[in-house]
Amino acid sequence: MKKKRIYLDYASTTPLDPRVFATMKPYFQEKFGNPMSLHSFGQEASEAVEKARKYAADFFGCEPSEIIFTSGATESNNLVIKGVTIGYASQLKKNKKNKLKPHIITTQFEHSCVLSACKKLEEQGMAEITYLPVEKEGVVNIKEAQRAIKKNTILVSIMYVNNEIGTIQPIKEIGKLITKINENRGTKIIFHTDAVQAINYLDCKVDNLGTDLLTASAHKIYGPKGVGCLYIRKNTPIRRIQDGGGHEFGLRSGTHNVPGIVGLGMALELADKERKKNYKIVEKLRDHLISRIMKEIKGVKLNGSKIKRIPNNANFIFKDAEGEGLLLGLDMKGIAVSTGSACSAGDLRPSHVLLAIGLSEEESHGSLRVTLGKYTTKQEVDYFINALKEVVNRLRKIAGK
Amino acid sequence: MKKKRIYLDYASTTPLDPRVFATMKPYFQEKFGNPMSLHSFGQEASEAVEKARKYAADFFGCEPSEIIFTSGATESNNLVIKGVTIGYASQLKKNKKNKLKPHIITTQFEHSCVLSACKKLEEQGMAEITYLPVEKEGVVNIKEAQRAIKKNTILVSIMYVNNEIGTIQPIKEIGKLITKINENRGTKIIFHTDAVQAINYLDCKVDNLGTDLLTASAHKIYGPKGVGCLYIRKNTPIRRIQDGGGHEFGLRSGTHNVPGIVGLGMALELADKERKKNYKIVEKLRDHLISRIMKEIKGVKLNGSKIKRIPNNANFIFKDAEGEGLLLGLDMKGIAVSTGSACSAGDLRPSHVLLAIGLSEEESHGSLRVTLGKYTTKQEVDYFINALKEVVNRLRKIAGK
Repeated sequence: MKKKRIYLDYASTTPLDPRVFATMKPYFQEKFGNPMSLHSFGQEASEAVEKARKYAADFFGCEPSEIIFTSGATESNNLVIKGVTIGYASQLKKNKKNKLKPHIITTQFEHSCVLSACKKLEEQGMAEITYLPVEKEGVVNIKEAQRAIKKNTILVSIMYVNNEIGTIQPIKEIGKLITKINENRGTKIIFHTDAVQAINYLDCKVDNLGTDLLTASAHKIYGPKGVGCLYIRKNTPIRRIQDGGGHEFGLRSGTHNVPGIVGLGMALELADKERKKNYKIVEKLRDHLISRIMKEIKGVKLNGSKIKRIPNNANFIFKDAEGEGLLLGLDMKGIAVSTGSACSAGDLRPSHVLLAIGLSEEESHGSLRVTLGKYTTKQEVDYFINALKEVVNRLRKIAGK
Repeated sequence: MKKKRIYLDYASTTPLDPRVFATMKPYFQEKFGNPMSLHSFGQEASEAVEKARKYAADFFGCEPSEIIFTSGATESNNLVIKGVTIGYASQLKKNKKNKLKPHIITTQFEHSCVLSACKKLEEQGMAEITYLPVEKEGVVNIKEAQRAIKKNTILVSIMYVNNEIGTIQPIKEIGKLITKINENRGTKIIFHTDAVQAINYLDCKVDNLGTDLLTASAHKIYGPKGVGCLYIRKNTPIRRIQDGGGHEFGLRSGTHNVPGIVGLGMALELADKERKKNYKIVEKLRDHLISRIMKEIKGVKLNGSKIKRIPNNANFIFKDAEGEGLLLGLDMKGIAVSTGSACSAGDLRPSHVLLAIGLSEEESHGSLRVTLGKYTTKQEVDYFINALKEVVNRLRKIAGK
């Protein structure tokens, strides 16, 4: 008999939607042209890329020329943090009066790619960074954000949804705040949100959010790995970081990943169409999961907000049962969950996200993240909960508790 | 009747080999895990990535830990040029005596991504660059390279095969030269080759070439777009430029493009196995193509070397018939060729490659590149030549010649 396999790690990555795969397929072997080529093979590939750009523009409520395709969210976020800083530095050269080092505001619990890019700029002396603290519930305080803004602030980068605890950040409110501040200001503050975990479930129209830059990734929304996009509001001063043939309006060189881009376009199109339906299905299952676990397992705590939370995320700490032990015990039963995020899975340090919301070092090692998706069934959730009860009990027995 | 379509632009991009596609396919929907995840879904993806790394290591004759996967050649080349410069700058900080700006040697006819990355470093005052001239036949002169080396030279980056005129550069000889110079030297000169156009046909064992860094791309070798790799010899001082979760030995962050990486691995495996066979087939067809064209069309010139040339490339100038006109005329007949490289297809400037080998501005606008591949047939070549004769005659008639 084939071993049962249950995937409850949708925040880490998702399987391709078969409809996305069907759309991509012709672009591997038949319509394989390079979109930069002038002949018909190139033109059919170019048309496919532009169609995907149109889907993305519709999704975010912007012009197609405001979307560029990248290799994924890590590249997009590097481009944002570094490209805006370089753009500002070159403006500075023109305006010799202003000698202040640029200031960037982000949060303590951003994705590691934003944090690492910021740390690199700090090390190189190219920018000054404020890492906003996060409240206990896992939400950024708007007043803290407002207080952090300085004369030399050029960029605010705050994730839409935290990837570990699933909390939703007040992006619209921060967007409004920044718009208001920008009205009375010389240098405009640019507002960026990493929306990777939000695309499936939340409103991502950039004018509603008030963002100038927005990061999205295909493989978190039932699209392919290795491709993402970045929304760049018209006239935003940002410079490319990957140099070359001048693709993507000069902002990102490199041959287009045509099947990947086509897949991202279709994944966005489907996310838009099916958002409401998927939201309801996933939220109901997740609420069922949380309520059964809280009722049936003792010594369990839900991390993050109960209300301001993406519908597919649950994140727990189990007293006397470490996350890694739970993960491996569940894996033996064919169930995939995670502790922390996949990006730092090899990392033995405690989760910087859990530390940021005030958990102790010990607690920050021990969380279990369960993230559902549109293919999750109630049977799977119940099978998982029963297995979890067994594994928690076993680990506690070993620990002598 | 379906329109005949003949693809003779293999240097621009290639269709996926069906065997490559078959290997990739399971990693989209079934084995879709994130290789950084600790559970079984993650582990099967991670095993696939490591298997591909092993194939790449076998291909280049190195250790798997000396291969990193990227989004393609443009990213790899940016990482080389900038990462080595940053690596050197951080060594400088430690060694305060040495205050010389790093010096990089490349050629006038490198790919635009190497040239643009070098130009950016120059603009930022981070490096001094020598752009080596190229001989009339399209080959770099080793003595010129030797003369260009200075005390502060940290990197020599020379392409293995030129992407427009297909000339093979004396990489082994330059490798030997640099090895010899390095024996009596404090700071080691790092030697990089962009081997994108060489993988299908030439020896790419890094120890035979004497290179410390080597760039490869999947979509030029019947693999997928959006993925490439970089060979990095152990202990080469290079710093990452894309920050994040610390993937790829800390040298390239971002979720692995698993199907893409699997495809690249298989494409390299196939290139290795079938190199000799493909070399012979393609060379014979290309020689047939050149000899018929030279015989049957008047006022034609072959650009680049007749001998030091990759077997699938032909590049011509036709008197009184411009490249773009030829390209479009042939496209009407379903035939895809190019003028210049695809990366600068939208660019109206003359080819920097043809200028570098001494052609006039006018001539440099007018070349026709024909590149064959393993799926090219003699029928296709003959059909192309007959069509070309027609188009050349028509254009000359219009020009009144």
